[in-house]
Amino acid sequence: MSDVAAGLSPEEITRRLAPKHHDGPPRVPGATRSEPAVVDQRWALLPHAAAAKAVIAAPEALARHETFARNIENFIGTVQVPVGLAGPLRVNGLAAQGDYYVPLATTEAALVASYHRGASVVTLAGGCTTLILNEGVGRAPAFAFASLPEAGAFVQWCLAHIEAFRAAAEATTRYGRLRDVRFTVEGNHVYLLLEYTTGDASGQNMVTIATQAVCDYIAAHCPVKPSAVFVEGNLSGDKKASAQSFQTVRGRKVSAEARLERKLVERHLHTTPEKMVDYWRMSAIGGVLSGTIGVQGHYANGLAALFLACGQDVACVSEAAVGVTRFEVEGNGGLYAAVTLPNLIVGTVGGGTSLPSQRAALEVLGLAGPGHARALAEVCAGLALAGELSIIAALSAGHFTSAHERLARGRKSTGPAASEGRPTA
Amino acid sequence: MSDVAAGLSPEEITRRLAPKHHDGPPRVPGATRSEPAVVDQRWALLPHAAAAKAVIAAPEALARHETFARNIENFIGTVQVPVGLAGPLRVNGLAAQGDYYVPLATTEAALVASYHRGASVVTLAGGCTTLILNEGVGRAPAFAFASLPEAGAFVQWCLAHIEAFRAAAEATTRYGRLRDVRFTVEGNHVYLLLEYTTGDASGQNMVTIATQAVCDYIAAHCPVKPSAVFVEGNLSGDKKASAQSFQTVRGRKVSAEARLERKLVERHLHTTPEKMVDYWRMSAIGGVLSGTIGVQGHYANGLAALFLACGQDVACVSEAAVGVTRFEVEGNGGLYAAVTLPNLIVGTVGGGTSLPSQRAALEVLGLAGPGHARALAEVCAGLALAGELSIIAALSAGHFTSAHERLARGRKSTGPAASEGRPTA
Amino acid sequence: MSDVAAGLSPEEITRRLAPKHHDGPPRVPGATRSEPAVVDQRWALLPHAAAAKAVIAAPEALARHETFARNIENFIGTVQVPVGLAGPLRVNGLAAQGDYYVPLATTEAALVASYHRGASVVTLAGGCTTLILNEGVGRAPAFAFASLPEAGAFVQWCLAHIEAFRAAAEATTRYGRLRDVRFTVEGNHVYLLLEYTTGDASGQNMVTIATQAVCDYIAAHCPVKPSAVFVEGNLSGDKKASAQSFQTVRGRKVSAEARLERKLVERHLHTTPEKMVDYWRMSAIGGVLSGTIGVQGHYANGLAALFLACGQDVACVSEAAVGVTRFEVEGNGGLYAAVTLPNLIVGTVGGGTSLPSQRAALEVLGLAGPGHARALAEVCAGLALAGELSIIAALSAGHFTSAHERLARGRKSTGPAASEGRPTA
Amino acid sequence: MSDVAAGLSPEEITRRLAPKHHDGPPRVPGATRSEPAVVDQRWALLPHAAAAKAVIAAPEALARHETFARNIENFIGTVQVPVGLAGPLRVNGLAAQGDYYVPLATTEAALVASYHRGASVVTLAGGCTTLILNEGVGRAPAFAFASLPEAGAFVQWCLAHIEAFRAAAEATTRYGRLRDVRFTVEGNHVYLLLEYTTGDASGQNMVTIATQAVCDYIAAHCPVKPSAVFVEGNLSGDKKASAQSFQTVRGRKVSAEARLERKLVERHLHTTPEKMVDYWRMSAIGGVLSGTIGVQGHYANGLAALFLACGQDVACVSEAAVGVTRFEVEGNGGLYAAVTLPNLIVGTVGGGTSLPSQRAALEVLGLAGPGHARALAEVCAGLALAGELSIIAALSAGHFTSAHERLARGRKSTGPAASEGRPTA
Repeated sequence: MSDVAAGLSPEEITRRLAPKHHDGPPRVPGATRSEPAVVDQRWALLPHAAAAKAVIAAPEALARHETFARNIENFIGTVQVPVGLAGPLRVNGLAAQGDYYVPLATTEAALVASYHRGASVVTLAGGCTTLILNEGVGRAPAFAFASLPEAGAFVQWCLAHIEAFRAAAEATTRYGRLRDVRFTVEGNHVYLLLEYTTGDASGQNMVTIATQAVCDYIAAHCPVKPSAVFVEGNLSGDKKASAQSFQTVRGRKVSAEARLERKLVERHLHTTPEKMVDYWRMSAIGGVLSGTIGVQGHYANGLAALFLACGQDVACVSEAAVGVTRFEVEGNGGLYAAVTLPNLIVGTVGGGTSLPSQRAALEVLGLAGPGHARALAEVCAGLALAGELSIIAALSAGHFTSAHERLARGRKSTGPAASEGRPTA
Repeated sequence: MSDVAAGLSPEEITRRLAPKHHDGPPRVPGATRSEPAVVDQRWALLPHAAAAKAVIAAPEALARHETFARNIENFIGTVQVPVGLAGPLRVNGLAAQGDYYVPLATTEAALVASYHRGASVVTLAGGCTTLILNEGVGRAPAFAFASLPEAGAFVQWCLAHIEAFRAAAEATTRYGRLRDVRFTVEGNHVYLLLEYTTGDASGQNMVTIATQAVCDYIAAHCPVKPSAVFVEGNLSGDKKASAQSFQTVRGRKVSAEARLERKLVERHLHTTPEKMVDYWRMSAIGGVLSGTIGVQGHYANGLAALFLACGQDVACVSEAAVGVTRFEVEGNGGLYAAVTLPNLIVGTVGGGTSLPSQRAALEVLGLAGPGHARALAEVCAGLALAGELSIIAALSAGHFTSAHERLARGRKSTGPAASEGRPTA
Repeated sequence: MSDVAAGLSPEEITRRLAPKHHDGPPRVPGATRSEPAVVDQRWALLPHAAAAKAVIAAPEALARHETFARNIENFIGTVQVPVGLAGPLRVNGLAAQGDYYVPLATTEAALVASYHRGASVVTLAGGCTTLILNEGVGRAPAFAFASLPEAGAFVQWCLAHIEAFRAAAEATTRYGRLRDVRFTVEGNHVYLLLEYTTGDASGQNMVTIATQAVCDYIAAHCPVKPSAVFVEGNLSGDKKASAQSFQTVRGRKVSAEARLERKLVERHLHTTPEKMVDYWRMSAIGGVLSGTIGVQGHYANGLAALFLACGQDVACVSEAAVGVTRFEVEGNGGLYAAVTLPNLIVGTVGGGTSLPSQRAALEVLGLAGPGHARALAEVCAGLALAGELSIIAALSAGHFTSAHERLARGRKSTGPAASEGRPTA
Repeated sequence: MSDVAAGLSPEEITRRLAPKHHDGPPRVPGATRSEPAVVDQRWALLPHAAAAKAVIAAPEALARHETFARNIENFIGTVQVPVGLAGPLRVNGLAAQGDYYVPLATTEAALVASYHRGASVVTLAGGCTTLILNEGVGRAPAFAFASLPEAGAFVQWCLAHIEAFRAAAEATTRYGRLRDVRFTVEGNHVYLLLEYTTGDASGQNMVTIATQAVCDYIAAHCPVKPSAVFVEGNLSGDKKASAQSFQTVRGRKVSAEARLERKLVERHLHTTPEKMVDYWRMSAIGGVLSGTIGVQGHYANGLAALFLACGQDVACVSEAAVGVTRFEVEGNGGLYAAVTLPNLIVGTVGGGTSLPSQRAALEVLGLAGPGHARALAEVCAGLALAGELSIIAALSAGHFTSAHERLARGRKSTGPAASEGRPTA
């Protein structure tokens, strides 16, 4: 704390940290309206940012304002994120089949290069095999009662009305299906965990609306009256890493595996299966010692870049980037590598997938629109596997730093100071 | 699994999942080159995606290809993400002072509206007070030895050479400072945790290069020879939620608090402090029951949108979106609300902050360039607080579903089917 | 490390830590034999411990050697642990009904006094209500396969043979029932989670033997051949705290609640509901910040003492002492308190319950022998609640230190040095 | 829930679960008094337990009542726990040196046999090397303030008064030393983490009293006045598994390692290093998937038995039984095995170590009284290693079930029903 406050008098610190009740500048106007005149009103609040307006509210962005209007409020323009193409990545899944060129949107140098290298070596190895192990998206409404016996009676009543819950839930949606209902009682509190399949949509809004319908049904019919009802009690794992995801699923749970012959590892990754496994073991325990959920390297990098390119909910990286990576040396001296991700909450319809460039990125993959969500989840798992192979190879070979140094710093022949602060894959 | 495989014969399943060793299409060419001719070569691999090319490789994107070249490999164009403006958000920090209009890039309807509402109520309450509690970015090189006594001897040697480590590390960087060195011994393995301050950069690449220099120094001088050295042993919490972050820091650790008078809660949030605290308690325990790290609602939404707008590493949301939210009813009937985020790994120089639209977003905040990283971290914490207030108010008032339904579905008067699958804040 | 090695030369350190391959003293003989002559042979290995023999191998212990022979190997005598009586504790459960005097075996001063106080106040409040929410004990055999598709095929085969698993398992036991089978696939590895009810036994051995029978059935009949089979893959939560226990159960999951009128708190606990809730909130967040599983205070103290008195497996405290404590101020100014423990793995038959003094302790409770396991689990939960009330009251009132000081130090009027090192409740 | 309630009418369920305000039987009288007359008064409350009294309040137990009086309240007698002897276990530590016969008190058949086997094989391998990596016991007083700036000011003041804290703390104790002070700020709450060394005592009471003195000093001198102070804010990891223990220490942190030649594994453990490592890997991931802290098998079994024999606080098994086990196949085909336990909170003076049979058990080890706590911690780690080797060997060889079946069931040639419910190691 002292560093941050350095040079400030106690009075100045007090002044800065105190609440300030004077009037402030006006609220951003217009809410869901996106037409240029309203956008101009918003920029009028930012007189210091005229140059920024020229970039963010560029004519080509404003020209498409109607396209964006259903996905954003208080619209002021767009940011452009560069996209790189990795691959091909060969995926041998039940849904995904073939060689995929994967669009990755990121501002982090070396990220695309690393996944590209991993994808190439996976493909040379015959591709990765992927399997969807489970599907479902949960909502967890929470109910408070006067006492534990009432909580128990409520659960009993619910158990007898599951079919009515299903009817209520499914009346709100064409594609959502209520798949399972579970209960967690904690004293006089009850959390329901309603698990849905959501078709080709990632489905968070779908399951909220369906769950509200279940809550409404309960309010109308249940003789045990709760003192409070909340449509989500923070037990669904929404937007956060949670240990429960290994017992349940959030979106799709997918395993991907690949086998790399020894000479492939040596020639293309410049290391050996033994070194990669030594690193894997040490990093797995490093993860355990730091108190992570699951053991993995850097799923977040690839998933964030793919989600961003393809119109997925980027905030879901917080839960999607959890899983288990496992590497083994096989009897023939080759490398076995597998990843398992229980929280791949992705879709090919709805949300950001309808925006022009995001839909275009799905088209690059050949996975735009209905019928492709499972394949997209399998590609995500394959990409995570490719990334783990590449980064673990680099770390085990001692190339990690140099690769980043070269890609992030070396493109212009500047000294270290010029490129300081460049985050890396 | 059965659902996914439905309708497939066992032979077909086997065929699909098997590795396939035929030749595939060519690798994406050109690596770090970004000029239009090379971009065209890449698109030539995607004949099915001509329409996508027109969107992603639009002329205005290609015209700036040199701008992007240092941040991406295998460049094929850009995606556009809509930006909404929330605020003003009044922040009373040591570094951040004043009323901020916050640019948020997202494709998720209702997200900006929710944070906007939260920011407004925080501002009406006199703003939020923020305090940076700790600063530092870690790298954790890992060393394997023949035995536990050698591991012990290595630690002893290191303890006597901390100053040499510092000199080696700091010779690689103008701004990075080695602040602390800690040790974790696990059998014959040793993990160092080197903690740096990184100035106004988020600093991941900076600390990797500095740590490589420490590893090189050790290799050259240490009499206890490791059997393996890895520049990162997965103990630094990089790109993943980890429990250790509450004992350490990753980037900046910031608390933000606000006090809302009772009538403010009632008038502007349409609920009461008691209901909000009831929800907070139930959701805190919901988080505990699901095995999360920390207790929080949806930091990920706001942080991902701010990171994306402002050129931060979006993958870091996996670690940044961890913290503790706490709400209490005060003696005067008002609401006390606080958030504490230990992993705000943000910067205002380097990385994606130098791209045009991302730098423009920082200019909207007034926080572009050197000298602003701490203020940006404080704004992040204030934004997270605003979001928690808004979402907990909505959930406690029973408005959560309707708000999302209205914003995500209601803009066009379509039935539910038309908007299916729209993910939400 | 340096402190421990202080004063030792490097050579001496090396000498001490090195493996030593000289012959050692003989192994303890006799294995399962317990008769005095064999016990004497064992003590003959310990010539330095003649005084110890007189205490541990006292005549009254050796006289009962046949009693102990089925519960211990390499028998050398007994240790005596003092037992204190807490209560009465009024439990209003489905199984437990009435006022229980609870025997607690411990060597820690103040522990019985603290639980006794908590039990008394619970009883004054009309007792605690308890509810068994779930029952089951798991075993998790693990199977390795050549590939992910084989792992998938194995799961499919298992799903078609659950009834055969049930038959195989239940043929090994009179009381055990296979209740549920779940699957976790991780790459080419499959973990089954077999969940059993075990009647009035805690059942760990029962479920191991039943699970071995399932593994044998699989080995004999499954066309998909595993490369390795392990009867337990460390996924059952056996002897360790695990986050999954909030999604499953280990033994019995029980909630207990009590309501304390305001004046009861003030008169008997010398604090107020508000202060207790303030402490609860702060300690709940303290637990979160330290990365615990669940939020609780000191269940381990009471459970260990009750387990030890009553012949339960004391090592199971590692998993049993996990749960959620919640305190609230009610509308009438009183205190609501609840605990939920998902891992109460207790029994009233088998194991240590057949030993004389342990069975006697169960008789003190009125819960010895068949038909009482559920009631014992409810008493455990009630005891945990009593303990949390007592300790949180003491901490919130500022009496915690003085109570321990008085009980642990003050019984003889000695200065601090004389009582140093006395651990406390 | 339904099973438990089976056969009960709704009215009967309601009746059973309701609070009951009638008078109950009297409270247990006498508190700290332990003389036979008072013991008799307590047994007079238990007329149904006359047979139990004869066992628990046996003459030899009552004859020693003064011995027990400082360790228990409401004394009613003793329970006897059988003790088995495992070993010799060769420990090559800085403190522990030589071949130890280890007394283990348990009621679980097969436990001593398993550790005995593990100890023997460790000894045949030249013993295990152990190293104490860290020492310290924490207390975490918690302070609430009006605001975050006050919390910050409080930390600043504390930082300037660490020496005064040290003086206040150390005035209360002859052996305790305040080693470190750290701070965790969460909004307007501050937790101090005071870390002490405690000599040869486990030290929980010692650090509580010393911490109270620090709190008293703060109350007397600090200009920033807290609204609440609690001597322990549940951040010290007391009596619960916590992820933070890998960043800190609770008691002593010890690693133990051993190397087993291939032929030793084959001859004595009837398996191979490869199979043991295969099992280790699968069980490590099993632990991760179930959300455990650390990765380990069954430390709890051996530690609970050793703690119980030697007068340690058995409830501390909940935190002590956390750590990391790692097995590797070495280049020469042998097995490398290591365990690391960060929370070995043990002592050789104070607490239960002064009771006759518990002190006798320490004498069996040769570790009774001052000067031996570090050696005891090293023996604990060596024992944990022995246990992991034995159990992983049994599981990898497929002998786990049969060993338990034989030891727990086979001693009398009875059918399964007779031995149902016997819990196992």
